[in-house]
Amino acid sequence: MALTTRQIAVAALDLAETRGSEALTMRSLASKLNRRPSSLYNHIGGRDDLIERMRALIVEEIDNRAFETEPWDSALISWAHSYLAAFATRPNCIRLLATTPVTDPSTLQMYDVVVEALGRGGWPDGEAIAVVRTVEAHVLGSALDFIAPNELAVPAVVPPELEHLHRNLDPAHASLATARFAFDLGIRALVEGLRRYQTARVIRSP
Amino acid sequence: MALTTRQIAVAALDLAETRGSEALTMRSLASKLNRRPSSLYNHIGGRDDLIERMRALIVEEIDNRAFETEPWDSALISWAHSYLAAFATRPNCIRLLATTPVTDPSTLQMYDVVVEALGRGGWPDGEAIAVVRTVEAHVLGSALDFIAPNELAVPAVVPPELEHLHRNLDPAHASLATARFAFDLGIRALVEGLRRYQTARVIRSP
Repeated sequence: MALTTRQIAVAALDLAETRGSEALTMRSLASKLNRRPSSLYNHIGGRDDLIERMRALIVEEIDNRAFETEPWDSALISWAHSYLAAFATRPNCIRLLATTPVTDPSTLQMYDVVVEALGRGGWPDGEAIAVVRTVEAHVLGSALDFIAPNELAVPAVVPPELEHLHRNLDPAHASLATARFAFDLGIRALVEGLRRYQTARVIRSP
Repeated sequence: MALTTRQIAVAALDLAETRGSEALTMRSLASKLNRRPSSLYNHIGGRDDLIERMRALIVEEIDNRAFETEPWDSALISWAHSYLAAFATRPNCIRLLATTPVTDPSTLQMYDVVVEALGRGGWPDGEAIAVVRTVEAHVLGSALDFIAPNELAVPAVVPPELEHLHRNLDPAHASLATARFAFDLGIRALVEGLRRYQTARVIRSP
């Protein structure tokens, strides 16, 4: 049966997650699909093109509609939550997609929507790119935190003399010590700080 | 000649960077060092222990002395810059270290210093952990951004109809579009937002 380009990209996401992004090659993917590499090249230009098809599948899950209806700051927070959800289940794609040049048209389209909304909100050209980059960085770093073990450190391995850390890791504070709480606090703080910067055009230099 | 534990950990960092963290095993490391795996086990308990020795080497480079002399907010910014520098040259260790449980004593000691300073600055127990996690997430996500290609997207591949993105990627704004500018903006905004939250005990919910 003929494969679609989409089926190839879905299989590539699966291969990266099960065997690691370094194991993802046109050859290993062809083998997984029981095809010859040459038959994949009818659909996909090569590994770089494949990575962009994988990016498109993930970006499909990111909801950026808030930029159409909400102010830029609350829209950024909605976008960041949706972005996080798309990557938090795909740890092996985070570095792969964060460090390869974006050429996928749907991702570029998403960026266009975001920078347009930032422009309407008063962000000058160029600075809007910095806002996108730093929010993305925050989301992708947080996605790594979500796939980490739940605690920052297990109290049992913390030497007793590290009393401040012990007190902070007390199970009484467990609800504050999760990756979820940290992300919710951090993304709101980041956007609040950006809002202050954008309003004042100056940020306090501590 | 006898190997030290430190030499083994240095070789492991090197192996992870040259061949990927998935290629790092006690066996591959022994082979790189021209030793039998059994001789490594005289120094290192296994792969988990090895990862913690690698973490200790990186954490050695992170300067947290600002927490002794500066207010928590400016100290966090100094710490984040130093933390970023330690990881930005080691892309293959970011995910490995971000997603394994911390047991290395020097890292736990660093966390103790940070949460102590946050406590002195008014952060309640437990919330201080969330501050550490979200700043770390921001730094590690930004480290991925630093090893990415310099531009968010190459203007030549952006379809002409995405005019907002085109305008933002204009070379006239090149100095604002770097990973460095985005990090400087983001970490200051994040810490400013945390400071507002900590002062007001409430953050505007947009």
